[in-house]
Amino acid sequence: MNRVELSAKSGSTGILMGDSFSHLSEQVGRKRLVIITDSNVGKLYRNRLEGYDSIEIGVGERVKTLSTVKTIYERLVEMKVDRSYFIVGMGGGLVTDIAGFSASTFMRGIMFGFIPTTLLAQVDASLGGKNGVNFQGFKNMIGTIKQPEFCLIDFSFLETLSTKQILSGMAEMIKCGAISDKGLFEYIEGNHKDMISLDKSRLEKAVESTIRVKMNFVERDELEGGERMKLNFGHTVGHAIEKVTGIPHGYAVSIGMVAAARLSKTKGLLASGQLDRLEMLLRDIGLPTKIRADYKELIEAISMDKKSAGDSINMVLLSKIGSAAILKIPKEELRETVKEVCV
Amino acid sequence: MNRVELSAKSGSTGILMGDSFSHLSEQVGRKRLVIITDSNVGKLYRNRLEGYDSIEIGVGERVKTLSTVKTIYERLVEMKVDRSYFIVGMGGGLVTDIAGFSASTFMRGIMFGFIPTTLLAQVDASLGGKNGVNFQGFKNMIGTIKQPEFCLIDFSFLETLSTKQILSGMAEMIKCGAISDKGLFEYIEGNHKDMISLDKSRLEKAVESTIRVKMNFVERDELEGGERMKLNFGHTVGHAIEKVTGIPHGYAVSIGMVAAARLSKTKGLLASGQLDRLEMLLRDIGLPTKIRADYKELIEAISMDKKSAGDSINMVLLSKIGSAAILKIPKEELRETVKEVCV
Repeated sequence: MNRVELSAKSGSTGILMGDSFSHLSEQVGRKRLVIITDSNVGKLYRNRLEGYDSIEIGVGERVKTLSTVKTIYERLVEMKVDRSYFIVGMGGGLVTDIAGFSASTFMRGIMFGFIPTTLLAQVDASLGGKNGVNFQGFKNMIGTIKQPEFCLIDFSFLETLSTKQILSGMAEMIKCGAISDKGLFEYIEGNHKDMISLDKSRLEKAVESTIRVKMNFVERDELEGGERMKLNFGHTVGHAIEKVTGIPHGYAVSIGMVAAARLSKTKGLLASGQLDRLEMLLRDIGLPTKIRADYKELIEAISMDKKSAGDSINMVLLSKIGSAAILKIPKEELRETVKEVCV
Repeated sequence: MNRVELSAKSGSTGILMGDSFSHLSEQVGRKRLVIITDSNVGKLYRNRLEGYDSIEIGVGERVKTLSTVKTIYERLVEMKVDRSYFIVGMGGGLVTDIAGFSASTFMRGIMFGFIPTTLLAQVDASLGGKNGVNFQGFKNMIGTIKQPEFCLIDFSFLETLSTKQILSGMAEMIKCGAISDKGLFEYIEGNHKDMISLDKSRLEKAVESTIRVKMNFVERDELEGGERMKLNFGHTVGHAIEKVTGIPHGYAVSIGMVAAARLSKTKGLLASGQLDRLEMLLRDIGLPTKIRADYKELIEAISMDKKSAGDSINMVLLSKIGSAAILKIPKEELRETVKEVCV
């Protein structure tokens, strides 16, 4: 096990890489514990959850609402949870987002930690302190920024994931490589087949590198005033695709990265060889680079994005593999780019 | 105008004492503005609000719910509010609590400031970064801790307040004197009649001293891990009284202070002369020291207090006028104290 500390303004997270679920009690000390999870994880890991108080929510993006949060508050009141408790979110990003928001607003905030069980949550969603739910179909419109006390990365959870779930996580790993770690990008280029077949040492090495990229951005700019925005590479268009079509997050980000990289090329920022390399890696892995959707619907969804401010939108573009830049793009310029990834 | 800066972990607040509403635009710079207020303030100050986008909520504790927050989110989405906006909560503590919670969770937090229009909000509720709403009848059960960007204290708003509202604010001022500023306590003892009749210079002097007491606690301990708890003097029993009987906050705190001071005497912490002095000041001013209520209901309400942890509760007691201490009180010991203030 390898513990690293993520330190930001809203708190510090002990990231326990390659730790085991069985060590959970060591993380919460003498506090009482309530685990928030979903019915999938509850079914798959009934044995691990035995003996813990838990709250199970449903699965899928449709449960990521204020109404689910309200149900959690009700259960917490019923269970007489007070500040002597610790809340643990155990599941994919949806569970950790909801659990983090519930915990950081219940009694104006009680302690919480995460056990991410998907690759996507381990490398991305559970880290960085962004918590929240969707509102009126807009992704993560309501939320808080508060770091969990710990994030326990137990790789054994990955064994029950589908290939689709692994690929979805790998899209975020490629993103981290693309925006700031050329070495990581190249490592994935050379090892993606083994990673997909869950070769333990290769996957763990890449996960650790990805987490370090993310930590680095979060520590420098927790509130996303500047640098952290780079982590949104592929997400402006990606979120809109996810909202409109409902495909998995990583798949949508994959297409979003292609859109942003093409815009980077159009703007004269990125060489075409570098663009090709990104597209090729995504395709080789089996991630999509185009989407069957109405581009007008996507544009409409983008205009309500949180990064949207007035008539332009801050977009993350690439200058080369391993380096990103933030540019203010008039919303009209986005139109052509979005059209290109629609079929 | 006298600007002081409150600096805490979650942010800094510029407290503009004796400023004018007409200077609002200077505080928000080039950001667009939405004012959240209530229908009372909206009616009384229609002229001041003219030209501003605003959201009006209803009045009274019954609107302090997640459902009102949801309505605010809906209006913000409708108005296409994004991160280029500034939200201003203008009203009593109920409005600033709800506006602060809405702003600090909408899009994971957009900038916000307050214009408190009641004495209670000016000396207490609008300061310190506690935002939130009630849940299932429990006060401020859901919320965040985040400092507003500014707090504009315009004394001209006090002219439309009822005596009841002035007294409610004065209870919090007496509290601040009692727990940490003997000079403030004595000043109120000597000047309360003039303060109640809105003698400008006397009221402003006492308001400023009260704000400094509060700032001092918040700066030292924003998250209420220790010292800040002292500001809850009178609030453990007070909140329960407010919940069960619905009397104004300051009135409930007045009775709560008497309960806590009597317990302090019982515990051998406070001399009886000091207890008498507190009770006499409250009575002289016209604040209540007893309540017509069923003590069992109050005890039940206290057991769900946020300060409650397990079988005991952290209570603020007095050691003398101007000095407080936090003691862990078994819930059973509270019973007798609560009985004493019930008629």
